[in-house]
Amino acid sequence: MDARETVESMLRPDLRGRTAYGAPQLDVPVALNTNENSYPVPDDVVASITRAVEEAARGLNRYPDREFTRLREALAGYLARAGAPIAPEQVWAGNGSNEVLLHLLQAFGGPGRTALGFTPAYSMHPIITTTTGTRWVDGARGVDGPGAFDLTAASAVAQVREHRPDVVFLCSPNNPTGTALGLDVVEAVHDAGEALVVVDEAYAEFARPGTPSALTLLAGRPRLVVTRTMSKAFALAGGRLGYLAADPAVADALRLVRMPYHLSTPTQAVALAALSHADRMLDTVDVVKDQRDRIVGGLAALGLHPVPSDANFVLFGGLEDSRSTWQDLLDRGVLVRDVGIPHYLRVTAGTPEETTAFLDALSALVTSTAGAAS
Amino acid sequence: MDARETVESMLRPDLRGRTAYGAPQLDVPVALNTNENSYPVPDDVVASITRAVEEAARGLNRYPDREFTRLREALAGYLARAGAPIAPEQVWAGNGSNEVLLHLLQAFGGPGRTALGFTPAYSMHPIITTTTGTRWVDGARGVDGPGAFDLTAASAVAQVREHRPDVVFLCSPNNPTGTALGLDVVEAVHDAGEALVVVDEAYAEFARPGTPSALTLLAGRPRLVVTRTMSKAFALAGGRLGYLAADPAVADALRLVRMPYHLSTPTQAVALAALSHADRMLDTVDVVKDQRDRIVGGLAALGLHPVPSDANFVLFGGLEDSRSTWQDLLDRGVLVRDVGIPHYLRVTAGTPEETTAFLDALSALVTSTAGAAS
Repeated sequence: MDARETVESMLRPDLRGRTAYGAPQLDVPVALNTNENSYPVPDDVVASITRAVEEAARGLNRYPDREFTRLREALAGYLARAGAPIAPEQVWAGNGSNEVLLHLLQAFGGPGRTALGFTPAYSMHPIITTTTGTRWVDGARGVDGPGAFDLTAASAVAQVREHRPDVVFLCSPNNPTGTALGLDVVEAVHDAGEALVVVDEAYAEFARPGTPSALTLLAGRPRLVVTRTMSKAFALAGGRLGYLAADPAVADALRLVRMPYHLSTPTQAVALAALSHADRMLDTVDVVKDQRDRIVGGLAALGLHPVPSDANFVLFGGLEDSRSTWQDLLDRGVLVRDVGIPHYLRVTAGTPEETTAFLDALSALVTSTAGAAS
Repeated sequence: MDARETVESMLRPDLRGRTAYGAPQLDVPVALNTNENSYPVPDDVVASITRAVEEAARGLNRYPDREFTRLREALAGYLARAGAPIAPEQVWAGNGSNEVLLHLLQAFGGPGRTALGFTPAYSMHPIITTTTGTRWVDGARGVDGPGAFDLTAASAVAQVREHRPDVVFLCSPNNPTGTALGLDVVEAVHDAGEALVVVDEAYAEFARPGTPSALTLLAGRPRLVVTRTMSKAFALAGGRLGYLAADPAVADALRLVRMPYHLSTPTQAVALAALSHADRMLDTVDVVKDQRDRIVGGLAALGLHPVPSDANFVLFGGLEDSRSTWQDLLDRGVLVRDVGIPHYLRVTAGTPEETTAFLDALSALVTSTAGAAS
């Protein structure tokens, strides 16, 4: 056996032959593939972040606060904007919401347990689930007609009753489809079984007016968890700070599976500095929402089929060959995401210039295809 | 059921009733309990770290380099000091060596698999093992007489042959006992089975002269992994940067289980800045080693039994009631570690002033105990 075969032979059987998760890391003029916020961190926040790290740097010989107490307080304060008071001891955080979800599955999943999600949804949900030895059940969303990707309370409840999962993932606004979920679906799923219900609200800040957060349902529901991230609306993807709100007993349970000192001193300092400028960091949300709506309109005008979006991205269908459209857009310097749904692509809403570049490139493609076909 | 009972009922059965890992986070004048480097980060390195984060801060709206390419190169360059060339693709890193160990167990352990360690060793090894659903086998070190905590090749090989583990943990220098392992033990354990052999070298930089690193054994051994950390000699515990060197196929396997973008932009920037001042960051290693040797001498002079140490801490025995000595030291402002071995305590070697404070406090206790007993 050569080295690679030796390592493969030691690998957990279910991992053999798999490829790692990963959007291509390509250097392109217009990167609209990972739902980042296209706007850089403002100068005054850069100054605060720099000062915070400078103050902490001398003491980096010491371990960080294992309980990230100040950060939990700041996150709780921020979450209160969603309309329900959240106490610091209800908050948990990790290096990205992926790690927060991993902690949940490590504590409440595992061998012999099942997690149910409604596909298509965030592609890391099944990966995190199976990484922890939990069985993944691929539930379904609606598949045809207008509202093709909607999930109704009746359908979700029927699937929960059928599979009796230990953990249910809901994703609102849903990635990659973009639409937020009614709270009636969250309540119905919660009440349909005994599962831990995880509502992934990574894109909540982009939702259309009048879209309530599942945070407002937390009181009295210890089986409900709402996850959030600073990577999207908060424009801090590089800072890797995901978090959740739930009953304090859930946060306590996650201490049993987290690695001690999992949040570094710089991570805590950077996130705290950014949170102290929350309004400034969220300044671009309205611009991004405008661009999203402009993308929806532009795509419809091209005869394509955008899915209604409460996020900073738009999934659109009506493409003959989505793989070749993806490549043609890339050839024109615009990187979007092929999420594996035939005839669909996903594009992030960024700056007005990026929207123009995307719509222009796509429009040229659609026209040339139409020309070739005629 | 109240909320706490509801959450407990959802918890993975083997986690119920457990308490989370954690040294007490107490604010004391002399903290010698977590083997940190007592010396703060020097001013010029603080300036470099600050500049690096300032330069990166504007771009925090973007995800970090998922492959941490520059950091892998810098870590490989640093490891070459141990006397064997290491290529960047042999390096993997995580948020602390705990996360690196977690990735190893996620990829190469799991349900139905077994990990063997030789206790007492790093207390996170069994926790990380069982967190991933891997069975932990508590192997034994020598238990009596001089060299009480030594692990011989013959004993280790016999235990590997008996338990046929999938993963073997070796710890050199061993925490909490302090002594480095001969490479003959590493080679013998490697050759005794088909297991992945993980040599935890968190404290390697403090080893006494002539102690070779298992890094020199990597070539041609794809089942061998050496883990390191920037938390100890490198004085960067707050930066949370652990890493390993192994065959490139091992690093590739860990991509299957790591959460994407697990190393934040600030984490990569801070670690890179510190590595660019490696000699400066390691400046204090010789002082710390002197203090360690002074502690060993001072303890022996008090009639206690220090274990030979290649680390920045000393385990010492001969205490009638180690729990009450721990409390008495704390009452005098000196926090050491009760590692759960009866009649033993562990103390970190720090500054000369800290050594004096510790030895003075202990000496007063031993004298008063002797006085009380006479």
